[in-house]
Amino acid sequence: MSVRKGVNQIRQALKSRSWDTITQVLKELHPTDQAELIKELTPSERRQVLSHLSYEQLAEIVAELHYDDQRDVLRELGRDKIPGVLDEMSSDDVVDLLRELETEQAQELLGLMGTEEAQDVRELLVYPEQTAGALMTTEYVALPHRLSAGETIDALRIISPDAEMIYYVYVIDERERLVGVVSLRDLIVAKPTMPLQEIMRKKVISVPASMDQEEVAKLLDKYDFLALPVVDEEDRLLGIVTVDDVMDVITEEATEDFIKMAAIHGMEDLALSPKEAAFHRLPWLLFLLLAGFLTGGIITRFEDTLQSALALAAFIPIIADMAGNTGTQALAVVVRSMALKRFVGKEVLELLRQEASIGLIVGTVCGILVAFLAVLWHGNPFLGFVVGVSMWVTLIVSTMIGALMPVLFNALGVDPAVASGPFITTVNDIVGLGIYFTLATKFLAYLA
Amino acid sequence: MSVRKGVNQIRQALKSRSWDTITQVLKELHPTDQAELIKELTPSERRQVLSHLSYEQLAEIVAELHYDDQRDVLRELGRDKIPGVLDEMSSDDVVDLLRELETEQAQELLGLMGTEEAQDVRELLVYPEQTAGALMTTEYVALPHRLSAGETIDALRIISPDAEMIYYVYVIDERERLVGVVSLRDLIVAKPTMPLQEIMRKKVISVPASMDQEEVAKLLDKYDFLALPVVDEEDRLLGIVTVDDVMDVITEEATEDFIKMAAIHGMEDLALSPKEAAFHRLPWLLFLLLAGFLTGGIITRFEDTLQSALALAAFIPIIADMAGNTGTQALAVVVRSMALKRFVGKEVLELLRQEASIGLIVGTVCGILVAFLAVLWHGNPFLGFVVGVSMWVTLIVSTMIGALMPVLFNALGVDPAVASGPFITTVNDIVGLGIYFTLATKFLAYLA
Repeated sequence: MSVRKGVNQIRQALKSRSWDTITQVLKELHPTDQAELIKELTPSERRQVLSHLSYEQLAEIVAELHYDDQRDVLRELGRDKIPGVLDEMSSDDVVDLLRELETEQAQELLGLMGTEEAQDVRELLVYPEQTAGALMTTEYVALPHRLSAGETIDALRIISPDAEMIYYVYVIDERERLVGVVSLRDLIVAKPTMPLQEIMRKKVISVPASMDQEEVAKLLDKYDFLALPVVDEEDRLLGIVTVDDVMDVITEEATEDFIKMAAIHGMEDLALSPKEAAFHRLPWLLFLLLAGFLTGGIITRFEDTLQSALALAAFIPIIADMAGNTGTQALAVVVRSMALKRFVGKEVLELLRQEASIGLIVGTVCGILVAFLAVLWHGNPFLGFVVGVSMWVTLIVSTMIGALMPVLFNALGVDPAVASGPFITTVNDIVGLGIYFTLATKFLAYLA
Repeated sequence: MSVRKGVNQIRQALKSRSWDTITQVLKELHPTDQAELIKELTPSERRQVLSHLSYEQLAEIVAELHYDDQRDVLRELGRDKIPGVLDEMSSDDVVDLLRELETEQAQELLGLMGTEEAQDVRELLVYPEQTAGALMTTEYVALPHRLSAGETIDALRIISPDAEMIYYVYVIDERERLVGVVSLRDLIVAKPTMPLQEIMRKKVISVPASMDQEEVAKLLDKYDFLALPVVDEEDRLLGIVTVDDVMDVITEEATEDFIKMAAIHGMEDLALSPKEAAFHRLPWLLFLLLAGFLTGGIITRFEDTLQSALALAAFIPIIADMAGNTGTQALAVVVRSMALKRFVGKEVLELLRQEASIGLIVGTVCGILVAFLAVLWHGNPFLGFVVGVSMWVTLIVSTMIGALMPVLFNALGVDPAVASGPFITTVNDIVGLGIYFTLATKFLAYLA
């Protein structure tokens, strides 16, 4: 059933006050779709529907909502129902919600929750954002190593409703240290009497709570796990990071890199006010504006040359743009290779040789073309020569700069994606126009 | 144990010819790490190690290798062992390998495989790349709806070694149509005598084999599934797409978008020859070079204005770059919002209003700053006025163009990421310089 159809059926059911139909309609939908359906309803319809759902159903729906909608729904539910819903949600989902709220509101909600659940959430809130600790859930399955396969499956039957993931059972010793992991797959294949310590894999790949979420995502992706355990210094289990959270991280990090390439501070969407969005864009723009005066300065320095051969002016944007374009291309390849860990910044010489060769090919092709077109346009072969050679040298140099810049940023401990397209464009404009006007001045006698 | 340490231990073991130690060392490593270790060995070391491994172990290692290394390893194994290895690999991994080979080589390998396994692979090879069909594996678990929970678990024990994923059991009717899905979690919680049709979820979300892999990834991510079933027109199960393959797709698609923004055709790495890499970069560069002549044409058209007030030249790159930068920013936000399905291209008017407001703020700030700096630099308040107002108008317009371009491309059925940074830069250069010189010509009397 589609969400659209569900909305219509719910509206019908509300008119005839048939609550059973409403429960039935929702049951046929995945929680993600239930959340979408809830968003489609009017506030008054929503209030009626929500008031007839169980805490468990409400928790599933709230967990799927965007935080703006979470806030609205919780407000509609009111203080009586909020604790029941929050207690049913998994701890990492509650943490995600609380992080978006003002400290006071978050504290208030925590106060409403059950003592134990609130404690779990408080412990998770301690970890800085974008780390394994902030990403993990505490609803994992950890069982003692002396249990047999059969006993473990029996235990899973009981634990299941409270665990986010039961396909991996983490095995702990008497001192609660993580000593192994058993998949549910291994468990059902094993003889029921076999103890966990004989079935489990002993070399568990685990991560510290402080690990950056991007590293966690790469590790989980590399090994194709469904979850990764997070441990403290003494190898005690703190939580697990599950594959669905990691998928969100991969998307988020790709967005971050993409947006940085366009010189923006943080992703925006239509929900942001224009002032907030402008605030994301202005810092880099102001920097680039000031840097632009350096490019302008190059032209002013060669004003006499320009005065004598005004035809040169038409090629200013052509040289500058092509320098920026080739630089951006090289930069993007290196930045993305770094993000994918295909290039770690060690083979700098090899990289420079590669980019110099690429620049040579690209520069030769574009240089010949632009020289040819310049002669056709202005009928002056010397102008064609100056423009063509400038383009040739500029593209070789700007390709190498584009490739080197992220390596340099990386070595300085700055995120290479910050050496964005617009930044490299400005740097290469200066280089390109410098080469162009220097050459033009040398051949000025033939151009004027 | 680290891969590094493993390599050393294997080298020791090879010297003393203690094959048990080698098996032991490998067993302690995850297949991903085993593959890394194998790559570290010299060809002769590798040959010795590989010759002592079982088909199952070899299959696990080969599946984890990059296809260049896969080819090397298979060559070293020789025709005798290849069939055994390929038959043990999952069908989607064999398909990935074959797709990278020449048709003849692929046919040869298929001929070596077992009849049934080769048939599975042949069926998968039919699906075009980047579709659900190409991504799926045929090693899923499908069982008849009359089976009980207990019988299903018994069946899983037998099927397990041949299935890629046993956490979801797909339920089929007499005519092999997909009628439900049961998770292993539901199975172990259910009463053993309960028939599958009473435990299963009946509304199964499935996809057609022709669905684009990006859509499949979004769906799986949206619902937080571990796998999605792929069905034909009659709802018969063809295969499943698992979460680990989808993670690779998300990374791949993010890379594609990122690289397109820099006007490159396809991702490169250092393994590519400079000629091949240049081939990825040249098509757009040549297009942009030709487009650059339009920008040059604007300047030539206003040559008289420039001749009378040469100070105007210094602001050519500043106006052009800022038009490009603001356009790129707006474009990146819209492209990424589209990729994340946060913006689907319907709310165009709202988007335009939003970007116009952002452009107004950004344009006002940058316009005032550039006017102030122009007066400081050249001491001519009229120049400051012309530059400032041009910047103001240009940034408002170029922000709106940057936001509109991907919407327009999308409506035309072209990938919005193709309206890349360099492309929007060229368009906005023309617009910006047109505004600048038109205004300058109007006030020429005060500038000269």
